[in-house]
Amino acid sequence: MEKPTPTYGSKQDFEKAVAEIQTKLGQDSISTDEDDLHQHGYSEWSSINADRLPLAIAYPQSTEEVSEIAKTCHRFRIPMNPYSGGSSLEANFAAAHGGVTIDFVFMNRIVSVHEDDMDVVVQPALQWMELNEKLQSTGLFFPVDPGPSAMIGGMVGTNCSGTNAVHYGTMKDWVINLTVVLADGRIVKTRRRPRKTSAGYNLTGLFIGSEGTLGLVTEVTLKLCPIPEYTRVGVVTFPDIGNAATAAMEVIRKGIQIQCIELMDEVQMNVVNRAGGTSRVWKESPTLFFKFSGTSGNVADSAKLAEEAIQPYADTFEFAKDDDEARKLWSARKESLWSMIALGNEGSSVWTTDVAVPISRLKDIIELSKKEMEDLNVFAGIIGHIGDGNFHGIILHDKNEPDERRRVEQCVHNMVRRALDMDGTCTGEHGIGIGKKDFLLQELGLDTVNVMRDIKLALDPRCLLNPGKIFN
Amino acid sequence: MEKPTPTYGSKQDFEKAVAEIQTKLGQDSISTDEDDLHQHGYSEWSSINADRLPLAIAYPQSTEEVSEIAKTCHRFRIPMNPYSGGSSLEANFAAAHGGVTIDFVFMNRIVSVHEDDMDVVVQPALQWMELNEKLQSTGLFFPVDPGPSAMIGGMVGTNCSGTNAVHYGTMKDWVINLTVVLADGRIVKTRRRPRKTSAGYNLTGLFIGSEGTLGLVTEVTLKLCPIPEYTRVGVVTFPDIGNAATAAMEVIRKGIQIQCIELMDEVQMNVVNRAGGTSRVWKESPTLFFKFSGTSGNVADSAKLAEEAIQPYADTFEFAKDDDEARKLWSARKESLWSMIALGNEGSSVWTTDVAVPISRLKDIIELSKKEMEDLNVFAGIIGHIGDGNFHGIILHDKNEPDERRRVEQCVHNMVRRALDMDGTCTGEHGIGIGKKDFLLQELGLDTVNVMRDIKLALDPRCLLNPGKIFN
Repeated sequence: MEKPTPTYGSKQDFEKAVAEIQTKLGQDSISTDEDDLHQHGYSEWSSINADRLPLAIAYPQSTEEVSEIAKTCHRFRIPMNPYSGGSSLEANFAAAHGGVTIDFVFMNRIVSVHEDDMDVVVQPALQWMELNEKLQSTGLFFPVDPGPSAMIGGMVGTNCSGTNAVHYGTMKDWVINLTVVLADGRIVKTRRRPRKTSAGYNLTGLFIGSEGTLGLVTEVTLKLCPIPEYTRVGVVTFPDIGNAATAAMEVIRKGIQIQCIELMDEVQMNVVNRAGGTSRVWKESPTLFFKFSGTSGNVADSAKLAEEAIQPYADTFEFAKDDDEARKLWSARKESLWSMIALGNEGSSVWTTDVAVPISRLKDIIELSKKEMEDLNVFAGIIGHIGDGNFHGIILHDKNEPDERRRVEQCVHNMVRRALDMDGTCTGEHGIGIGKKDFLLQELGLDTVNVMRDIKLALDPRCLLNPGKIFN
Repeated sequence: MEKPTPTYGSKQDFEKAVAEIQTKLGQDSISTDEDDLHQHGYSEWSSINADRLPLAIAYPQSTEEVSEIAKTCHRFRIPMNPYSGGSSLEANFAAAHGGVTIDFVFMNRIVSVHEDDMDVVVQPALQWMELNEKLQSTGLFFPVDPGPSAMIGGMVGTNCSGTNAVHYGTMKDWVINLTVVLADGRIVKTRRRPRKTSAGYNLTGLFIGSEGTLGLVTEVTLKLCPIPEYTRVGVVTFPDIGNAATAAMEVIRKGIQIQCIELMDEVQMNVVNRAGGTSRVWKESPTLFFKFSGTSGNVADSAKLAEEAIQPYADTFEFAKDDDEARKLWSARKESLWSMIALGNEGSSVWTTDVAVPISRLKDIIELSKKEMEDLNVFAGIIGHIGDGNFHGIILHDKNEPDERRRVEQCVHNMVRRALDMDGTCTGEHGIGIGKKDFLLQELGLDTVNVMRDIKLALDPRCLLNPGKIFN
């Protein structure tokens, strides 16, 4: 199939579109302020950035306003780039073809809570941590836990996950329905509110993970689940990372019920210690963090089984001494990317990559990748949602040193190619964005990517929605 | 959008296509035997049937042969209707526009088992129960459990589920990747084999539940999970169905860990007794069947919590006395549709319908539907995967009595409309097929169904794949 070559509106078209949006939604509904453009078009923690910025930032306040923006952009052929938390790592929200970035910041409300149905309707710019704070009195929570600043809209876009995924699954498992504005401004709702359905194509599942290239998500109904009665956090250290990976595989293979199982290498444990948030000093060796949850009998059984499974591989096994230590430890894990960036030198850049493999291959890929990262001679560590076969390499480097940048790039590319060779994926949870388009093609082949492209062109024939992402 | 009006090949085109398939794949690869056509085009347990039969049945032996069949059918514009277990209930496999029915019966193998990765690669005509028998020695199983005769291909097609869904989820949660033959014969694979991915559009999830209208599934990689160490089955009777539904909601709302929670009304309990497979006589009143599983501590905690939650509503609470009784009881539940058909009069037809609602509305819809079914004065019962808000009405009637048929139809349609009024769905697990196309439109609206149609036309512009299903 030929690569589509979309034609976008001219500078004049853009100016007319901005004027029309301002007429429809008010003067303040769209900004062309330089700082605003930079803030929405560039990210210091992204592995890559687009070589240009958006031309304007629109600030809709409702689904209907998003629809009006889309109708105008559609008429004048102006690209639309959706933006919520801005925490994604592969330039998923960058304005690769300029146009208007749509920031949902004013659409950050909980629309309704249905406690008895265990679901909640929210807008895209709600942070998942804020959602859980607000839900606390209901005894329910939303279990998908990516980086702390992530918002629901972007979480839908990348089909994100986090430490809870090994037990609770990923974003696609927690969305009941979506309200979506299509490229031409039509508003569709993918489902009503049953927790289970076989009615027609799974459009909800199609929009999730499509990185805003098929539609602009303006409302999301999320499943909730009861907060577990009892939680316990265990910390296990290992002589080397291979033993840690093997132990994790054993726990998964035995079906021991865990809420989380996270790998931190000795570099990451050093980061936790230096960040200092946990009020104690941890041993700086490869470590697994476990979270067990459920009833007390359940947690006791699972912890015992895990300890037995791990024992042949581990150095030390201890539990957090109380809820406060457990909470601080988990928060240190969640903040690790930002802690690491904070510890970098002036001018250093971070490259975070994310792959996943069938779990029997975890030990091999982690050992090989760890070795290669050590040889880089920069500040670099491995951290992983190891129960899903998913892990991240985080590499600090000076991107203004071309040789260093090239070696880091080589190391990341080798890691991804290794994952593909092992029948894995080039991204377990960060998405393709701009950064991994070539790898998607390697992973799935041209015919499969062409099926994606056919769907894209059917729903957005002018290629206006987040152009330049996932595939060309 | 205008309704597409596909033009199919003429009688001569059909004959050329059959000859070409025979040349390519051998004389026996395609049949036009009358009995064969009838067996593949009509189902006595379906709520509806097409008013015609397929013109031929093709029997491919490999993905490549399916691709060759598709290439020929594409060239001559012959409809292709995929067929595996033939147990679906809304004419999902009927040959609504004639053409060739593709029976996967010779593609019924386990291709490979990856024990350490906890996955298995299978062909579409493998029965899920046979799969589990063959996996037993690995300590792993595949938890999606629809009607016993269902096969993996059809299970993908309808995004089916079963009694385990409340704990383990539905088909879409257990498929890692699909090999699919597209309308024009191209072969695509939707993913490699990681258990988690964010790489591009979720094509796996799109093909699941598309009822063969987007592609012909020829190979499926399924996730597996460890067989629980310990299982216990509880049987609880209630004074009326409203109390049974309320008790079920309480258990779900409290997050008590159960593997299954199934509702049988007094009619279904009578069917279990009359079918006689459980070697004891059960009380014929509304009943919940529970399955608890996990470690022994886990099961003890959950059973105790469930008993406490249910106690205010129940008459009696007892556990199956041993594994054999538990197994027989579960098997009686799984066979209930067929047992009921077997107990019908000569010439009676069955209409099974399937809706799902947000769980807070379950009590209301079940009470109203039960009342209306009683007023029909025929042999009719309710059975439900009540933990998902999903239940079935099974109605035996004489379809040659126009008045009776009309009253049954009215009752079913009222049940579906009631589900939609409660923000539910017209089908929780059976799919749309021919039977529920109008309801899909009512449920989601024209714009949403048009998005499905746009996707269909992008992937199958000649409308050759299972035409006449899901939407017109």
